[in-house]
Amino acid sequence: MITGENYIGNNRSAHGEKTFRTFNPKLNIENGQVFHEASYEEVDKAVALAWEAFSQYQNISGNKKAEFLRTIAAEIEILGEELVKVYCQETGLPEGRAIGERGRTCYQLRTFADLVAEGSWVQATIDTVIPSREPLAKPDLRKLSVPIGPIAVFGASNFPLAYSTAGGDTASALASGCPAVVKSHPMHAGTGELVASAIIKAVEKIGMPNGVFSNLNSGDIEIGKQLVKHPKIKGVGFTGSIVGGRALFDMASERKEPIPVFAEMGSINPVVLLPKALLIKGEDWAKTYASSITLGTGQFCTNPGLLLGIKSDSLEQFIRTLSDEIIAIEPSCMLHPNIISKYDGNKKKVLQEESVLMSANYSEPVPVNHARQTVVRVEGSSFSENPKLHQEVFGPFSMVVECSSIAELIAVINGLEGQLTGTIIGKKEELEAHKEVISALQNRVGRLIFNGVPTGVEVCPAMQHGGPYPASTDSRFGAVGVHAIQRWVRPMSYQNWPDNLLPQALQNGNPLGISRLVNNETTSEIIP
Amino acid sequence: MITGENYIGNNRSAHGEKTFRTFNPKLNIENGQVFHEASYEEVDKAVALAWEAFSQYQNISGNKKAEFLRTIAAEIEILGEELVKVYCQETGLPEGRAIGERGRTCYQLRTFADLVAEGSWVQATIDTVIPSREPLAKPDLRKLSVPIGPIAVFGASNFPLAYSTAGGDTASALASGCPAVVKSHPMHAGTGELVASAIIKAVEKIGMPNGVFSNLNSGDIEIGKQLVKHPKIKGVGFTGSIVGGRALFDMASERKEPIPVFAEMGSINPVVLLPKALLIKGEDWAKTYASSITLGTGQFCTNPGLLLGIKSDSLEQFIRTLSDEIIAIEPSCMLHPNIISKYDGNKKKVLQEESVLMSANYSEPVPVNHARQTVVRVEGSSFSENPKLHQEVFGPFSMVVECSSIAELIAVINGLEGQLTGTIIGKKEELEAHKEVISALQNRVGRLIFNGVPTGVEVCPAMQHGGPYPASTDSRFGAVGVHAIQRWVRPMSYQNWPDNLLPQALQNGNPLGISRLVNNETTSEIIP
Repeated sequence: MITGENYIGNNRSAHGEKTFRTFNPKLNIENGQVFHEASYEEVDKAVALAWEAFSQYQNISGNKKAEFLRTIAAEIEILGEELVKVYCQETGLPEGRAIGERGRTCYQLRTFADLVAEGSWVQATIDTVIPSREPLAKPDLRKLSVPIGPIAVFGASNFPLAYSTAGGDTASALASGCPAVVKSHPMHAGTGELVASAIIKAVEKIGMPNGVFSNLNSGDIEIGKQLVKHPKIKGVGFTGSIVGGRALFDMASERKEPIPVFAEMGSINPVVLLPKALLIKGEDWAKTYASSITLGTGQFCTNPGLLLGIKSDSLEQFIRTLSDEIIAIEPSCMLHPNIISKYDGNKKKVLQEESVLMSANYSEPVPVNHARQTVVRVEGSSFSENPKLHQEVFGPFSMVVECSSIAELIAVINGLEGQLTGTIIGKKEELEAHKEVISALQNRVGRLIFNGVPTGVEVCPAMQHGGPYPASTDSRFGAVGVHAIQRWVRPMSYQNWPDNLLPQALQNGNPLGISRLVNNETTSEIIP
Repeated sequence: MITGENYIGNNRSAHGEKTFRTFNPKLNIENGQVFHEASYEEVDKAVALAWEAFSQYQNISGNKKAEFLRTIAAEIEILGEELVKVYCQETGLPEGRAIGERGRTCYQLRTFADLVAEGSWVQATIDTVIPSREPLAKPDLRKLSVPIGPIAVFGASNFPLAYSTAGGDTASALASGCPAVVKSHPMHAGTGELVASAIIKAVEKIGMPNGVFSNLNSGDIEIGKQLVKHPKIKGVGFTGSIVGGRALFDMASERKEPIPVFAEMGSINPVVLLPKALLIKGEDWAKTYASSITLGTGQFCTNPGLLLGIKSDSLEQFIRTLSDEIIAIEPSCMLHPNIISKYDGNKKKVLQEESVLMSANYSEPVPVNHARQTVVRVEGSSFSENPKLHQEVFGPFSMVVECSSIAELIAVINGLEGQLTGTIIGKKEELEAHKEVISALQNRVGRLIFNGVPTGVEVCPAMQHGGPYPASTDSRFGAVGVHAIQRWVRPMSYQNWPDNLLPQALQNGNPLGISRLVNNETTSEIIP
């Protein structure tokens, strides 16, 4: 049941005076539940509890943390129909998407559970003593990853489950041994509260320390600011806009003790269309891309917002088919009136530029809050000269850039900001013949895709979801997949420490049976 | 031969109008050579060359990079006596230290050479395709670490070889595939130029791209600023003061595209003296610590500046012996008049505090620029209340904090800023009985030492040299040992990429024979 209250650790609390409601974009009405924004004191208390919980939680065994994460997943599933219903009411997204995203969320939790139960993720590294070394004995040194402290997690509007309350940031923080304080996203506060209730049930069932998780309702930026500036918050996970992510990054950098901010922000995900591929399969690719651009009403950070081609008849044909296909798709609802109004505004700004030509725009009447999909076209030289055209238009929108040569194409790519993904559509031999294009693209992106679409982010170890700024604030880490846990830990060494007092991961007997780097060899053997 | 010129890529250049000389602190005179500070245009050209070199250097094989690093080490050794002579003239440090540090520098270069020749450091991670997965095929995903771009390296005053021109930051950057632009430290510009000449010889011998390394003379902060703000610099390595490191961090964070700054800054390296250990071996520990505090005239970032004990007769006895022993040591020369004047100034500030009592101060006449070693004492409560006493006094200085109880000791530890190291001196059973002390200390440091001294930083994989802020700006990384390479790379994924066009590290045939994570198993097998 949704109460509109915050979770300050395990306790419901609603002392704040500000209230807000969520919005049903399909019905174009506010939902009934009133949410109480967390007060200054409530935020402070949540962080204080997290700090207290950290002293205990950082030492809890991998198996116990795994049990906790698995129980969270189970409790989310137990929420059943209500979660799906509230999710749909608060987002306008279809039921299938809610169910799919719930599956992904639980899968992520269970994947992190497996990771910490197995235990090798702490990167145990051991260099044993060499007493006879001249001129001085080499000491015994043993290193492992330890959690950094309470993490502030900012839920994403476009992934109310998988990148929100119990999403990738929370799951990886809890897996690492860090408490999580979630700033719930105001657009899906009800979904957030339901998921939070599942986490709190798991906290209580498994006997985790009170404060290991809190959920704070928040209608505007103030609570986020308070969290990021709080001296006992030691890291931040964020998915959202460049403006929002950069503001948090700046605040965190200006602290007396700066803290890392992992903000996954904007991306226009360039797609390079090589000539031969268009000649042979241009129509198929146009259809595929019409779907990818409109998937989830274009509300994905991997949405292909930029298509780069070399001027030719086949590119012309591709643009025509793409335009026809995209208009044939039924418009769908966006998450919130604010989002559709930004979409329309950003589109308008782009279309005000003289160099930009409309290629396709859905023009039939549409239900309220439904987004008209749009394709525009522009010359390569005009695109290069005009940074306004490099900005993301979040929604079912894509821009085709027509380059006069490969050299111009490379210049366009080199002029792009950092991106989550870059895609090449081509024949295999074209790929071989365009090494410079690929090399330029590689330097701008976190993931290169061949003959596919950037939408659809697989959760697996080899996935990198992150890229050079502004795709993310720290390209050396990613938000998707098990490696996301590395964001919340730091290495810590023990020198000449008595064996029985070392963390188990570093003891001679290797009681956890994990894989370790011992004297430069990867092994799970014991040390005699 | 030293010319006083910069290396802009492979070419000597001296267009700047500002000049400066280095200083011989032992003789208290300026050295003869005039150094030309790099001009604005020279700095810009060095970075432009580095950027150009990067497009080629990032793709050079591990074996070739290894050859390059090994040749740098060999060329440094070939510099022979001249390097040792100039080092001593510019630092006042003894010849043995110069030779030892040269050995460490070459060892580091060769260790990174071994690492990149072997190749597994790129953390190749492969999840193969599952075409039959429902509802959608799982794509083939393959990830590895790629270099981020040109790195600005700031040489450290106190390690003219091992953490300067060809030191840990440069070696790790070059190993990763990133060009290095070094801002030479003005106190040892001659040593820097000699080492730079060795690197340039290696660049030419091995045929590395021009611009992969530059060496910029610099008398003040302007060149450093220009480097950190340059859009084509993608990361910064720094060892030095908190003020300097924080200034660079702030500049880097304020850029349009923020970049990571790895600044290893200050630390007072708390040492906890548990009662029983002092009772039994107090005199031995006092002698050991008198040596550690004065080693290298206290000019180590791991110098033990803070000794924490519980009030008792044995602590009293320890302080007395430590004071006697430290005064019995012959004072030694500091690196530069600026450094000794800061040392004297910081000591004076501490002694102005009413709560601080002098316990030992070398008072005999000393040669110019030689530092008088000092031990002071203060009550735990006074220390806790007065953050001024928590500041580093860089030099042969240590403060003994006398706590009235274990609880006060824990409060003192909890009140400390982040530290590189924390040491416990105790009997093994005392360690077991003081878990709270250890746990408090662990949360403040990057390395815990049992019954030893913090000085002496072993170069090996299990070493962590870095700690919570302000010990370093990013506690998740370290500057010493092979893991330092991870600072200069980011993960990058390939999705459904043709096998023969993948980087070798990711190809099915595993032509490099490296260890990889394939479908969640660590293996060096080929993929059928």
